[in-house]
Amino acid sequence: MRYFLELSFDGTDYHGWQRQPNAISVQQQLEEALSMLLSETVEVVAAGRTDAGVHAHQLFVHFDTLQELDTQGLAYRLNRFLPEALVIHEIFQVQEEAHARFDALSRAYRYRISTAKDAFSTRFAWYFAQPLQLDVMNEAARMLLGTHDFECFSKSNTDVKTYICTITQAVFEQVGHEIVFTIKADRFLRNMVRAIVGTLVEVGSGKRDLSSIHSILESKSRSEAGVSVPAKGLSLIAVEYPELRLHAR
Amino acid sequence: MRYFLELSFDGTDYHGWQRQPNAISVQQQLEEALSMLLSETVEVVAAGRTDAGVHAHQLFVHFDTLQELDTQGLAYRLNRFLPEALVIHEIFQVQEEAHARFDALSRAYRYRISTAKDAFSTRFAWYFAQPLQLDVMNEAARMLLGTHDFECFSKSNTDVKTYICTITQAVFEQVGHEIVFTIKADRFLRNMVRAIVGTLVEVGSGKRDLSSIHSILESKSRSEAGVSVPAKGLSLIAVEYPELRLHAR
Repeated sequence: MRYFLELSFDGTDYHGWQRQPNAISVQQQLEEALSMLLSETVEVVAAGRTDAGVHAHQLFVHFDTLQELDTQGLAYRLNRFLPEALVIHEIFQVQEEAHARFDALSRAYRYRISTAKDAFSTRFAWYFAQPLQLDVMNEAARMLLGTHDFECFSKSNTDVKTYICTITQAVFEQVGHEIVFTIKADRFLRNMVRAIVGTLVEVGSGKRDLSSIHSILESKSRSEAGVSVPAKGLSLIAVEYPELRLHAR
Repeated sequence: MRYFLELSFDGTDYHGWQRQPNAISVQQQLEEALSMLLSETVEVVAAGRTDAGVHAHQLFVHFDTLQELDTQGLAYRLNRFLPEALVIHEIFQVQEEAHARFDALSRAYRYRISTAKDAFSTRFAWYFAQPLQLDVMNEAARMLLGTHDFECFSKSNTDVKTYICTITQAVFEQVGHEIVFTIKADRFLRNMVRAIVGTLVEVGSGKRDLSSIHSILESKSRSEAGVSVPAKGLSLIAVEYPELRLHAR
């Protein structure tokens, strides 16, 4: 039987989602907790892999088990067992062929830029002291909407077959003393959001011309785009699935 | 010349406000930064001393210097020098006899209780899983209003001359999945807010009778009151001064 599990985590003290030797990952911690509580080896497949230091307000994983689960009871026990920084929101049975990664229709990320030094957002926002022109950044963001080859914003050593993504939302908003970027797409390449935000911040601070966005996209070269912003400001905030897939038969 | 300095800090990684050997304190970090930037030995006097792990959204200190300061420039340089967790908001000249501690008319603290596991508030809220009766807690809180001897809520080994405090506000409010306690008084004893919250949580979870509040106050004994709640949920949020004192001649 296949189950979906919805979780959130503060990524500060994790070396990213993916299991790796000699470093603590969310995947490892979750798989160990599930395996222990279910007394069988459980592997989880996530909607996406977040990098070290990146947070998730909503991430889905799927896992298989031979047992019929008391899903509420398991979520309760997982939350008791797992650290405060890793929270299980819901577990529910899905169709056997439902897939947390391949079925996801879209992912949305948020990036928080603090324009004032703030003692209480140091884990979740990147402090950038120079003035930013919100309207110019939004004009640049609109140029990214639609279907493009985003190789220019991707880490080079990835194993993807195509760099084509469709961005359906990309907008900066002023929220108190923060500038919050929300971006939604069918898929994201490695490091893509942080490279985009870094490039658009360079546009917004006058370091880079608005018109350069088109040439960066055409170049397909990561070195043409701006510097990546720090991981801590980034969070995966939503993953969408087709309704039908999520109902167990 | 005497100056006031308004600051805020995330207390998680500090061993409290007060200077002490072999541990990093806010006072030490601030005095070292001021002394370095002003090229003279600067000592600061704070409105109050927060314990290890307690935060401050608004704290005032005063310090003396022989120099006429560019207050905005100094605040800017301090913020560049000090870590992100310690923020200087304003520096302004005051009357020579103005005193950050003795002149303070009131202090207000906030305590955040999270009623749901939350990956993003682990530094600033205490997670308490049992159901709490807000109305009963507020009834108990109202019993504390006014002028009383609060020895029952004070750490025993303090050097205060009197345990009399006047509480002008004490209220619990539901904010999302958090219960937020705000308490305002002319002065607070050591550990007082955490002991009060711990006691009122025991009332709210049915562990302790509402009527016991009066007998706890009368007992003047710390052992009669409840267990102190963890420091991380507590923040000093406001200190009030008489307007006149704060204007330099």
